[in-house]
Amino acid sequence: MAKPEIAKLGHAALVSTDLEKSLWFFKEIVGLEETAAIDGVHYLRAWGDFQHHTLSIEQGDSSYVKRIGWRTKTNDCVLGFKELLQQAEVVVEEFPKGTTPGIGDAVRFQLPSGHTFELYYDVEKPDAASEYKSILKNQVYKAHRKGTSPRRFDHVNIHTSTNANYTFDFLLDTLGFNLREYVKGEEGILAGWMSVTSLVHDVALVQKPTLPSKARVHHISYWLDNSQDILRAADILREQGIPFIGPGKHGISQAIYLYVIDPGSGCRVELFSGGYLIFEPDWEPIEWTRDEQLTVGNTYWGDSVQDKELNNITIEAR
Amino acid sequence: MAKPEIAKLGHAALVSTDLEKSLWFFKEIVGLEETAAIDGVHYLRAWGDFQHHTLSIEQGDSSYVKRIGWRTKTNDCVLGFKELLQQAEVVVEEFPKGTTPGIGDAVRFQLPSGHTFELYYDVEKPDAASEYKSILKNQVYKAHRKGTSPRRFDHVNIHTSTNANYTFDFLLDTLGFNLREYVKGEEGILAGWMSVTSLVHDVALVQKPTLPSKARVHHISYWLDNSQDILRAADILREQGIPFIGPGKHGISQAIYLYVIDPGSGCRVELFSGGYLIFEPDWEPIEWTRDEQLTVGNTYWGDSVQDKELNNITIEAR
Amino acid sequence: MAKPEIAKLGHAALVSTDLEKSLWFFKEIVGLEETAAIDGVHYLRAWGDFQHHTLSIEQGDSSYVKRIGWRTKTNDCVLGFKELLQQAEVVVEEFPKGTTPGIGDAVRFQLPSGHTFELYYDVEKPDAASEYKSILKNQVYKAHRKGTSPRRFDHVNIHTSTNANYTFDFLLDTLGFNLREYVKGEEGILAGWMSVTSLVHDVALVQKPTLPSKARVHHISYWLDNSQDILRAADILREQGIPFIGPGKHGISQAIYLYVIDPGSGCRVELFSGGYLIFEPDWEPIEWTRDEQLTVGNTYWGDSVQDKELNNITIEAR
Amino acid sequence: MAKPEIAKLGHAALVSTDLEKSLWFFKEIVGLEETAAIDGVHYLRAWGDFQHHTLSIEQGDSSYVKRIGWRTKTNDCVLGFKELLQQAEVVVEEFPKGTTPGIGDAVRFQLPSGHTFELYYDVEKPDAASEYKSILKNQVYKAHRKGTSPRRFDHVNIHTSTNANYTFDFLLDTLGFNLREYVKGEEGILAGWMSVTSLVHDVALVQKPTLPSKARVHHISYWLDNSQDILRAADILREQGIPFIGPGKHGISQAIYLYVIDPGSGCRVELFSGGYLIFEPDWEPIEWTRDEQLTVGNTYWGDSVQDKELNNITIEAR
Repeated sequence: MAKPEIAKLGHAALVSTDLEKSLWFFKEIVGLEETAAIDGVHYLRAWGDFQHHTLSIEQGDSSYVKRIGWRTKTNDCVLGFKELLQQAEVVVEEFPKGTTPGIGDAVRFQLPSGHTFELYYDVEKPDAASEYKSILKNQVYKAHRKGTSPRRFDHVNIHTSTNANYTFDFLLDTLGFNLREYVKGEEGILAGWMSVTSLVHDVALVQKPTLPSKARVHHISYWLDNSQDILRAADILREQGIPFIGPGKHGISQAIYLYVIDPGSGCRVELFSGGYLIFEPDWEPIEWTRDEQLTVGNTYWGDSVQDKELNNITIEAR
Repeated sequence: MAKPEIAKLGHAALVSTDLEKSLWFFKEIVGLEETAAIDGVHYLRAWGDFQHHTLSIEQGDSSYVKRIGWRTKTNDCVLGFKELLQQAEVVVEEFPKGTTPGIGDAVRFQLPSGHTFELYYDVEKPDAASEYKSILKNQVYKAHRKGTSPRRFDHVNIHTSTNANYTFDFLLDTLGFNLREYVKGEEGILAGWMSVTSLVHDVALVQKPTLPSKARVHHISYWLDNSQDILRAADILREQGIPFIGPGKHGISQAIYLYVIDPGSGCRVELFSGGYLIFEPDWEPIEWTRDEQLTVGNTYWGDSVQDKELNNITIEAR
Repeated sequence: MAKPEIAKLGHAALVSTDLEKSLWFFKEIVGLEETAAIDGVHYLRAWGDFQHHTLSIEQGDSSYVKRIGWRTKTNDCVLGFKELLQQAEVVVEEFPKGTTPGIGDAVRFQLPSGHTFELYYDVEKPDAASEYKSILKNQVYKAHRKGTSPRRFDHVNIHTSTNANYTFDFLLDTLGFNLREYVKGEEGILAGWMSVTSLVHDVALVQKPTLPSKARVHHISYWLDNSQDILRAADILREQGIPFIGPGKHGISQAIYLYVIDPGSGCRVELFSGGYLIFEPDWEPIEWTRDEQLTVGNTYWGDSVQDKELNNITIEAR
Repeated sequence: MAKPEIAKLGHAALVSTDLEKSLWFFKEIVGLEETAAIDGVHYLRAWGDFQHHTLSIEQGDSSYVKRIGWRTKTNDCVLGFKELLQQAEVVVEEFPKGTTPGIGDAVRFQLPSGHTFELYYDVEKPDAASEYKSILKNQVYKAHRKGTSPRRFDHVNIHTSTNANYTFDFLLDTLGFNLREYVKGEEGILAGWMSVTSLVHDVALVQKPTLPSKARVHHISYWLDNSQDILRAADILREQGIPFIGPGKHGISQAIYLYVIDPGSGCRVELFSGGYLIFEPDWEPIEWTRDEQLTVGNTYWGDSVQDKELNNITIEAR
């Protein structure tokens, strides 16, 4: 069969030591909508997310990201990836439809970095409750109902203390991601922004030897339509006493950002707008030196992510 | 070989009866940059367009759109499409690299509606002049230098007085576009928004029996990052005495729009922001009835495109 | 004593035939906060309004604006105006502190046009409930909590079927308003924008012979910080099925506007941003001809207020 | 006669060691318009400034602010202030109309802090050149023509190494400013924001013992209509390699700011938007402790002004 392909980022599954606070943060402050709550797991999405959920949250003894889910291009791609991964001697587990509410037959496996990825094609696309349903046939919920009100789930940023080259190879060669921008160190790529879509990144991977554990998530990200929405979000977060970095603009990816920590789980969320789209079929990955990253790549302008303790916070991934 | 694929919209080639006025409009008011002027043809692009040009303008005895260009996914796709088209008994002309500055080997043919499309893979990606070059490695020009300052070329909207079903079939089946949203009439699709990218439309096609000629272009479109930029553009255009429709928001595509006519050629330009992206691999085309189109599809809010004389202006396509 | 002076617009007192719907509209959709509800009257203000309330709403058999309140510059100005008005043979009624919750000793009288004005100096400035209180000492509530979320009450626009010249004279000469912009007809001012503050208008007066009664209110207005907030408000209103005119930009006053009708009372509200401030001590009132008003004064760009049935809706004033 | 009153901030007169670079910065980057250049002095204003100029720049051997000009409420106020100042034993110099182009009869004197203030009533209000003139009768120039494009001159922020209490008393008691917000130290006001208009400050005064000379200007400020305009300004400045602090939001005054240094003179400019207006006649000055200033007053969110070397740059005032 043809090489299996990933279509898009699907969801992140989060475990929180303080579920109630995490739900308050993601529902009332970030402004996500809850699709369902089943067996203690809450399924959330943004007003413009089309599928069942893009974030799940449940209570746990420690906080961590259980899993990052991806939709494949076709149903056959799920098994296609299973075979491909097994050929590469990656352990793959299969989960039948409904194991996770809203998600079809799935396979799970670990990246060399230790992060768990899940692949599936089928998803449920439930309507919004009639009270909250948009009058637009191409939009799930009414926008601007509460909180910062992002439109959609955008990307994940994962960190590893291992040699990232193995994971970059795996993401690019086996999973089919395209490298869009990267920071080059002496022994390879230190940080890379990769996508299967026209976004600059569906996933970013950063190598950092000093992490508290092997596999970490630096942030998950939701997208807002306008840069002013980021300033509005800053007002909202500041009034709630929730610390954040930003607003600022990355040179790499051109994203206008706000980094905020979920006070329940410690999981960082990037609220962002701006950025650019890549439609060119012959995109040459943009190479940044470590020095360029520090002078313009990380922060083109604004509240710098560098040298901030808050920027070192990551959450475990399993 | 595998089915050839289009990667993205490339450019529009415009002929104007008043070149000087068109250049003033597109360069000073819209705010495009000029890459080159060769043999009387001016090659323009927006500050975030990566390729040689996205619009060309030249003097002519009448104003019309000569050609709409598209980049294919690989070099082989150009010949792949040639074969495919010839099998379908479409007349295809070949043009060697350099026939159009900045563009590689190309084939040209007409849609059933009479619009000329051009397919090519290779493009030059010239740097900006050092004075205007962005300090960002992922951006061509400094932004916000003049005029409304859009980021990139976005889509084209073409009209036909013929039965559009033939052209829809051709675009979807032969050229591989995906139908994203459409208005359904009794005898088929009256208007359709189609893309090969994650945009809701790279091209829209509308059937309108009353056009002055068979093949028309309703507008070409450039994208601005923020909805406020559309309001700023309105200020700029109003002060120059250039008529426009908008600002408003389409229900279909969710675009925030301003429609303005190039006073040189009569070609309409849509300055737009907002909209949404489609990453779902199983996107169900959104169907709108004619009534829904009129009540919410065309204008979700704002200055309505309906019943405005200005909205009936189209330019000939050859 | 010195000539008494008005400092600023204070509040509007609204009677609604559907109190519940009006409260839903002003609290949930516009996004005002409720300070108090006493004897069936609800007292509302925006998150940046410093005084007790800027809008009151109560149930009635018909919908109308009972009263428009103004703060004077000093306490003595209240009696100063009383004397001045009585000298001018205007009937003045006195109301002791507390007649209206949050408002001190007041006098009430009618303009020649029949609109009731109230003057007072003392106001209560209650804190927000701790949950909603801003962490800023110069801001009453946290912003962006719900609805369109305007910052403050801004102005009122009143209409009269009488010869407006008497009322203009009264507002300018007796009450001390400054004329900022006006439309000149053959027999005097047809429409005038007047202020005691640096705003272009705290009150606008329009002469219109065809009104259903002598004294009408065309709209009350709340101010939003950014023009993008007006577009966000349009999304919110459209999703609720509440009709509005706009977004557009007035030439006169340079305001970016949205006109929306309270579905409970029929009272129009202008949500607006932009505009300019007048600090010049020798401001020459801007004169517009009726023709200039129609071509650029009413609508500089956007969804035109002219020729719209919705724009003819006014509410009675007593 | 009645107590003389100041109506508004008029202009700042700047001397630059690099006139050419300062003109490039203020005209091309900030985006001011030039009204006149007479005897080597260039007179600039923003597109929405109504008077002849709000900034003058000339070449000098050192860079400093020569003078800060204010318009009085009436012509009589100029002489009224002269008498009042002389009674207070302040040295006052008179300058006849035309000494400074565009400005009428004026008096000059020094604050106790050593800053030179000028008072005048008459100003010329020249039209824009027809090419640049707005079609709006209430706006001088077309907006958005170049650079960051602020609407109007807003305020000045002056620093003193002397005991500021004398200068605060002088500004409040003799010149009639209203204290709007202030930071209280053990021996009085450390920093105060004062206005004669509805702005939170036309002038701010800060006491700082460590200044390189007695009288300094921390910044002059121009106002932009929307907070997004500040982000656009950041893009423009970053691309030109001009260092700045921001974007951020002050708690005190609620201003959204960008602080940028004129590379010609070293004079800081605050580009700002947001903020709030004070119309209350009984405004209680907002008191901030030094600790509150540091935690929320200086920076509510964003790129902090504290602990930045760039924030210590001031320019001499004579």
